[in-house]
Amino acid sequence: MGFPRIRGDTVTDAPSTPTLVMIDKVTLAATLPEGAAPFRAVDPASNTINATDLGITRGDGIFEGLGVVDGHIQAFDAHLARLARSARMLDLPDLDLDVIAAAVRHSVELHAPAPFLLSKLVVTRGIEGSGIPTAWVHTTGGFDFDAERANGISVVLLDRGYRHDVAQTSPWLLQGAKTLSYAVNKSVLREAARRGADDVIFLSSDGYLLEGPSASLIVRFGNRVVTPRVDLGILEGTTQVAAFDYFAAEGYETSYELLTPADLAGADGLWLASSGRQIAPISRLDGQEVAIDRDLTDRMAARLLGRTA
Amino acid sequence: MGFPRIRGDTVTDAPSTPTLVMIDKVTLAATLPEGAAPFRAVDPASNTINATDLGITRGDGIFEGLGVVDGHIQAFDAHLARLARSARMLDLPDLDLDVIAAAVRHSVELHAPAPFLLSKLVVTRGIEGSGIPTAWVHTTGGFDFDAERANGISVVLLDRGYRHDVAQTSPWLLQGAKTLSYAVNKSVLREAARRGADDVIFLSSDGYLLEGPSASLIVRFGNRVVTPRVDLGILEGTTQVAAFDYFAAEGYETSYELLTPADLAGADGLWLASSGRQIAPISRLDGQEVAIDRDLTDRMAARLLGRTA
Repeated sequence: MGFPRIRGDTVTDAPSTPTLVMIDKVTLAATLPEGAAPFRAVDPASNTINATDLGITRGDGIFEGLGVVDGHIQAFDAHLARLARSARMLDLPDLDLDVIAAAVRHSVELHAPAPFLLSKLVVTRGIEGSGIPTAWVHTTGGFDFDAERANGISVVLLDRGYRHDVAQTSPWLLQGAKTLSYAVNKSVLREAARRGADDVIFLSSDGYLLEGPSASLIVRFGNRVVTPRVDLGILEGTTQVAAFDYFAAEGYETSYELLTPADLAGADGLWLASSGRQIAPISRLDGQEVAIDRDLTDRMAARLLGRTA
Repeated sequence: MGFPRIRGDTVTDAPSTPTLVMIDKVTLAATLPEGAAPFRAVDPASNTINATDLGITRGDGIFEGLGVVDGHIQAFDAHLARLARSARMLDLPDLDLDVIAAAVRHSVELHAPAPFLLSKLVVTRGIEGSGIPTAWVHTTGGFDFDAERANGISVVLLDRGYRHDVAQTSPWLLQGAKTLSYAVNKSVLREAARRGADDVIFLSSDGYLLEGPSASLIVRFGNRVVTPRVDLGILEGTTQVAAFDYFAAEGYETSYELLTPADLAGADGLWLASSGRQIAPISRLDGQEVAIDRDLTDRMAARLLGRTA
């Protein structure tokens, strides 16, 4: 089966059939032949990408991964806003977010009902020389994160190589854009596996905690919950924002700060948050055991999975 | 027309028809049905890539660009060796270089004869979950670099964000591998254009000259010709090596060194070298005029284009 699995998951149901929707009107400027639909469902096993697409020859494009719980697309507006922000950082044409949103919904509706789906939305710069982005939504299901939520994940700290202020000094490095150039984000997972770990938290070259390769870091210090500042060239995590809403509603103080590994010695809980896994407690950091709070994690997971928007 | 153009070129002939050869046996471990060919020519306008290929969803793969002069594939062994090196850095399966070489030759033979062709060879990690790389060769023609060779190119220095020793300290950042995650290599060209320039030389975050986004830097100081050391996390340029052969044959001393922008004040000539453009003299650096030596550039270009291997 060629459908995506997220690291650490197990497939509980029979593998679900993914859906693939190609988006033909992805930019505001795009014009279609009269009567043509702006997007269309296609066989997900078919080949729909040309070998000269800049998305594949140069990793030149952007993406979002959207969680779908019982048919509700989570943080939909936040994902679309981040997609548009990434498009601007890459000087892509203005996107038609209404068409894109409709295509995501269509992809979800076509999928067999499941408790949790993940919709991957991709926009590339398109076939070289065409100036027309290529875009699609691919929706898959069959994930189960119960084990990692109960037992936690083992994480290592790895240098991302950039200073904490690189997004300000060198915006052409695209830090903070969610690009398709994720070879390093996959490479660090292989390095983590070599070290016996499941996932990674990136460090800036000058020693600040950043984010995971596909997740945000959340740290609890007593009644205070902290995540690294987004001006560090990291993504604003849609799930992290929702988790902060949970914490704020429960009376915690939440803030965006500069954090170093030394700060974690005083932490009362660490989590990675992402659209795919929602929330995963960290039970081991660079080989050292970290206490996990199953009750708090379960309450937060229930709240995150209960979102209807 | 969707065929690739290289920055700075002009198309002199009628656009040539590209050729596309998909490689079905790209790894040593691959097995094919009895009688199946290890590669096959396909219509280059057809879609041959699945939307879940990790090459496009994660920029997770590697490539080489091979120059072809009058049917001779330049530095063929050096390109194949570098491809294999990139594959090891990305933990890809061992590649079947004999099949890959035959596929490149087939792609070149299928193309209408032209003075200069460029063959782009790509190997991705393949469809997610399959464990089987996707690979192809795309050969195009119609380039003409006479103008940039005669007049030179305008280049700006841009921070790459990494220290000069990052390939040693943090190998998971894949510096020195030729990956498909080239969104930054394209972004810096847009930044160069905003500054009125044609191309870029990357600087390490601690101030050393590195390479262009798709070319090597060559600097002449009198009778001495220098290029940045390859342990700086940069690619060993196949064309730079050929240019050094030319200089050595002409009695120049050649060396790999640490260079800073301040060192360029004493330089007698600067070039960018790559398989696509072969050799381009730099006539402007960060807005300051740089003297170009047309005779030397022409002699070097003749030598580079005269290579039969």
